[in-house]
Amino acid sequence: MKIMSDIKVTKVGIVGIGFIGSDHLHRLTKTIANVDVTAVCDIVPGKAQKELDRQGLKAKDYHDYHDLVNDPDVDVVVCTASNEAHYEIVMAALKAGKFCFCEKPLALDANQCMDIVKEEQKHGRRMLQVGFMRHYAPEYVQMKKMIDDGTIGHPLMMDERHYNQTQPEEYDSSRSIIETAIHEIDLDHWLLNDDYKDIQVFGVRKSKYVQNDQIQDPMIVMMNTKGGVNIYLEVYVRCQYGYDIKCDVIGEKGVLELPTVPQVATRLNAEYSTAILTDWKARFESAYDIEFRDFINHVSQDESPVGPSAWDGYIAAVTADAALQSLAHDGEKVDLDFPERPAFYVEK
Amino acid sequence: MKIMSDIKVTKVGIVGIGFIGSDHLHRLTKTIANVDVTAVCDIVPGKAQKELDRQGLKAKDYHDYHDLVNDPDVDVVVCTASNEAHYEIVMAALKAGKFCFCEKPLALDANQCMDIVKEEQKHGRRMLQVGFMRHYAPEYVQMKKMIDDGTIGHPLMMDERHYNQTQPEEYDSSRSIIETAIHEIDLDHWLLNDDYKDIQVFGVRKSKYVQNDQIQDPMIVMMNTKGGVNIYLEVYVRCQYGYDIKCDVIGEKGVLELPTVPQVATRLNAEYSTAILTDWKARFESAYDIEFRDFINHVSQDESPVGPSAWDGYIAAVTADAALQSLAHDGEKVDLDFPERPAFYVEK
Amino acid sequence: MKIMSDIKVTKVGIVGIGFIGSDHLHRLTKTIANVDVTAVCDIVPGKAQKELDRQGLKAKDYHDYHDLVNDPDVDVVVCTASNEAHYEIVMAALKAGKFCFCEKPLALDANQCMDIVKEEQKHGRRMLQVGFMRHYAPEYVQMKKMIDDGTIGHPLMMDERHYNQTQPEEYDSSRSIIETAIHEIDLDHWLLNDDYKDIQVFGVRKSKYVQNDQIQDPMIVMMNTKGGVNIYLEVYVRCQYGYDIKCDVIGEKGVLELPTVPQVATRLNAEYSTAILTDWKARFESAYDIEFRDFINHVSQDESPVGPSAWDGYIAAVTADAALQSLAHDGEKVDLDFPERPAFYVEK
Amino acid sequence: MKIMSDIKVTKVGIVGIGFIGSDHLHRLTKTIANVDVTAVCDIVPGKAQKELDRQGLKAKDYHDYHDLVNDPDVDVVVCTASNEAHYEIVMAALKAGKFCFCEKPLALDANQCMDIVKEEQKHGRRMLQVGFMRHYAPEYVQMKKMIDDGTIGHPLMMDERHYNQTQPEEYDSSRSIIETAIHEIDLDHWLLNDDYKDIQVFGVRKSKYVQNDQIQDPMIVMMNTKGGVNIYLEVYVRCQYGYDIKCDVIGEKGVLELPTVPQVATRLNAEYSTAILTDWKARFESAYDIEFRDFINHVSQDESPVGPSAWDGYIAAVTADAALQSLAHDGEKVDLDFPERPAFYVEK
Ligand SMILES: [Mg+2]
Ligand SMILES: [Mg+2]
Ligand SMILES: [Mg+2]
Ligand SMILES: [Mg+2]
Repeated sequence: MKIMSDIKVTKVGIVGIGFIGSDHLHRLTKTIANVDVTAVCDIVPGKAQKELDRQGLKAKDYHDYHDLVNDPDVDVVVCTASNEAHYEIVMAALKAGKFCFCEKPLALDANQCMDIVKEEQKHGRRMLQVGFMRHYAPEYVQMKKMIDDGTIGHPLMMDERHYNQTQPEEYDSSRSIIETAIHEIDLDHWLLNDDYKDIQVFGVRKSKYVQNDQIQDPMIVMMNTKGGVNIYLEVYVRCQYGYDIKCDVIGEKGVLELPTVPQVATRLNAEYSTAILTDWKARFESAYDIEFRDFINHVSQDESPVGPSAWDGYIAAVTADAALQSLAHDGEKVDLDFPERPAFYVEK
Repeated sequence: MKIMSDIKVTKVGIVGIGFIGSDHLHRLTKTIANVDVTAVCDIVPGKAQKELDRQGLKAKDYHDYHDLVNDPDVDVVVCTASNEAHYEIVMAALKAGKFCFCEKPLALDANQCMDIVKEEQKHGRRMLQVGFMRHYAPEYVQMKKMIDDGTIGHPLMMDERHYNQTQPEEYDSSRSIIETAIHEIDLDHWLLNDDYKDIQVFGVRKSKYVQNDQIQDPMIVMMNTKGGVNIYLEVYVRCQYGYDIKCDVIGEKGVLELPTVPQVATRLNAEYSTAILTDWKARFESAYDIEFRDFINHVSQDESPVGPSAWDGYIAAVTADAALQSLAHDGEKVDLDFPERPAFYVEK
Repeated sequence: MKIMSDIKVTKVGIVGIGFIGSDHLHRLTKTIANVDVTAVCDIVPGKAQKELDRQGLKAKDYHDYHDLVNDPDVDVVVCTASNEAHYEIVMAALKAGKFCFCEKPLALDANQCMDIVKEEQKHGRRMLQVGFMRHYAPEYVQMKKMIDDGTIGHPLMMDERHYNQTQPEEYDSSRSIIETAIHEIDLDHWLLNDDYKDIQVFGVRKSKYVQNDQIQDPMIVMMNTKGGVNIYLEVYVRCQYGYDIKCDVIGEKGVLELPTVPQVATRLNAEYSTAILTDWKARFESAYDIEFRDFINHVSQDESPVGPSAWDGYIAAVTADAALQSLAHDGEKVDLDFPERPAFYVEK
Repeated sequence: MKIMSDIKVTKVGIVGIGFIGSDHLHRLTKTIANVDVTAVCDIVPGKAQKELDRQGLKAKDYHDYHDLVNDPDVDVVVCTASNEAHYEIVMAALKAGKFCFCEKPLALDANQCMDIVKEEQKHGRRMLQVGFMRHYAPEYVQMKKMIDDGTIGHPLMMDERHYNQTQPEEYDSSRSIIETAIHEIDLDHWLLNDDYKDIQVFGVRKSKYVQNDQIQDPMIVMMNTKGGVNIYLEVYVRCQYGYDIKCDVIGEKGVLELPTVPQVATRLNAEYSTAILTDWKARFESAYDIEFRDFINHVSQDESPVGPSAWDGYIAAVTADAALQSLAHDGEKVDLDFPERPAFYVEK
């Protein structure tokens, strides 16, 4: 235990110790400074304790997340449960007056998200952050700053790709929206400081690598913003060659291009090459660390978190719903209309 | 304080709270997990306490580094004092049986380094790590792995650049070796798994940006290894355009090229461009974090550190001495001869 | 005159000595081997002779293009007259049984193009080549070969940009289609070995650099092929930063990216940069030379030309007409239907 | 034959119809405008006629090059004979008062080159061009202009590579200088507007791909100029991976990097790649065309050629001789001293 440093140690409870929960458990105990994971909880009996043992950790192991949320040794709730359980856990944390970090998606649909927004507003300030970690990737932060600085004039168009090397048969077209395109849906309005006006999703020639005919892969997501920017996004989750993220922003007088992970270049066998990652986790690994460091820095001082908010979670949910609707109706354009952004969700 | 996690918190004392000491103080208390900085010490009275206050920290503030070294609440000594003081502080830490991290250079000359090596050998295992942080930069780690894997066959040549945007008049030619080229001198034998056979340092046409005629800038450092590899290194510390590090390794059947920090690319004003860093600290910032995380991970479990060793510090000192000798003698080739590497410095 | 070489010198007559006609006059007399420009003709009296004098050339100067076409000293007619005159000149050349090179567009509309196709078919072989020079740019030739070789599997999507640095006010939205997008409209079906099924053209947020509100710039051209490939093309002719052509082809297992003109890279002022061209002529200059060399090589031996055909000119005209129709109707999708490609237009 | 154009057709005779002679025969008859190859000559009876037949050409076929040189139907002599014969053929052409293009090297040694310089000076103007074609490669032309414009301040260092994929056993170390490094030896003083002061050539660890132990491959050529620029050139003619030419010029405030041949980039199999050429001829093919077009443009108007001169041929010969001497003496530095450049060889 720390004996000297006059730094507050933030006590965290994690609900849901699956794939991403175990990863955050490791991150919060081994990588991020000044955090103590005091409690964990998983719906499957014994699962959380097994992971604690595997990582050489001690913490209270609750069977009911309400007990974790209400434990005075838990200052902050991290929700990494299954998507279906996000809503109730987040609501419980808010009702207990605890800061909460919830992995994306915030909840299952727009209504649930709006409920959460309303619950949070009772506190008069932000209590919640949603795990859209790309906001913390240095390359996107740099790109946003250049847009805000007017480097390329007003943005007019965006060209994006979200490609995965491969996905199993059960990864159907709706998951390509809800789990894949959701990242760009969340990012783009933030990058552009704009709101979406409409969205359409349509297929192109199917790759021979789809496992069955019902799967549309690749597909194109096209959005227009209220400010008139057109966003073109190719989603291709069986592209075979790697995990590849592209983001170009075209402005009135220039173009910005997102860089990728630096790799040693080789001159070999008549080719000049650099490796393309195949694992998405490696692509944004440092973004996860920066994300939690920023979240903890704020809540440890009883300050509201400043990363992606419940409102961002709500926007993503409404937009993804419309995307699914477009996909179900031959790619017709679906209009989007959002209520006004409540005051404390407006970035200063 | 942490109440639950079954993780040992490593108690660190820092000697020397100057520029780099303050930076490491911040790193060890705010960025690296499971460390407690229990004590600090600076030769200038009040300096350490002032920095503790500035960073909102509490720790014992010693006037005499011996007291810090011998404090039972100090498990590990971090030496960031002035170069002249490294020797005595490191020796004191070793004599007290404490693990020690010493910023580069390990000591002022080869004799001091050899003394340290001998003191460390009394422990029968490594107790010390030297702060050559580039060993932890992911791009060098990747490059070393590719060399070790035989990707390009046996290395034959290296082409390197170490350029700074600018340096003040007092940064003379000897500092270009001792503080600048020293990084490549340390890195290259590690990358190549080889030993140096000779070194020469010579000037080229002087840049008009040198502040006085005594300064040789740029200069070329050329080394040959026992294995026959030729290393060509351009050192130019007033290159005006940025902080630029290049490292190509040419092997029998291919070339490896070190990547650089990823930056948003722009198409603007008839140019396709990416920014070049101007601040060296930004270039290897994450390497410093990884370096300390690795060091703490090992010593917290009473294991020897595995980063750059006292022996590496000794090799760098001998080689830099020879470089200065070459520079003083019109770039004549100076032979290098090292005693056999003691057993526990040999990497497994 | 050549006295020894046993090489046939091809006698060329050029109709229309304006901007592009003068350029081709220079090319055919100074750059391309084994050509003799024996006659020229321009509708403006004296204009052709003036250009001959300026370039230090001698040739017959006709006032009526029929005389040039029927001159026995003219083997081949090059038509670089205004777009309105293409139809009648090409028809005259075909009726006279002469090989003909016609600058793009082949004629003003699809009907005229079909007339030409029918006239050409009377000869039982190709007599005509249309000046879509990009087919000869080595980078497109390489790309087509890689597609044909199956390097990336079957193509699924294309991403393209056609950006000009700037255009005057009179360059309206229809010229963005007829003179700018026409190049990609011509290229893409050739690259893909496919036919277009539909096209739509729609605007995005207008650049502040448009000179009046009637101009839609940038705009997006989207086409689907019968084979299911989706083509996304950004046309932005006042992008301010340069002349920039992008072409990515995304296939089932990989992506091809068109390279651009090689330029010396600089490290300067904290930027790593290469120049982007601002003049479109410099971009494809060598393609023009290769185009004419290939055309002359074939017709000099009384062989049919193998470059872009009258049928390609017809396809471009039909597609551009549909694009204009879409633009006039809020970007609605316009279906395309082509008759079967006559036998001798099918590439072997 | 041309009947109308008022353009002089230049009558060329080619001496030596081997590999490069056949290539230039094709170039001058099929690619370059307004040239008539009126005569050829080869020391091997029947060889020239056979090549004429193969290329479908007619020309006088001489057995003795003196007859070709003195033929009034030969305005210009192109010398592509074996290196040993260059001297006498060039001298004969000069004595006959004919313009002459001689492939590199100009002659076998410095003395022969100086004889040629003296013979040419009798004409009071340049009559001769040497076939160092890289002077015409657009990338080098661009680089030279940027140096001359002061883009990077005064040059201080050059870093170069001249790599071939492979060479047979008979390509020994001296050929690595005389046939490979000779291109950079010729180029660098031209790029820098400077003269060489000394040169040294030394080996590094031998590649396992050398066919016998006498071959030094790779080797390093290092030159200093009178202006103080240091040139570092790696010559590696069995590098396995391709034909790769690198040229960086480091100046007081920036760096210039030579681009390479543009190639379609691929994203495939977890790699982002572009092809590296393996055939040196493809690398500089267009430079050969531009070279001859420029040469013919000048001499067709009875103007002196402006490409690489006899003086450049002399400098290359002296420097290559010194390089061989250094190689024979363990890489010792060999001083270079040139007489003052005669007036009409000084570029305006
Ligand atoms: Mg996430
Ligand atoms: Mg360091
Ligand atoms: Mg054209
Ligand atoms: Mg040559």
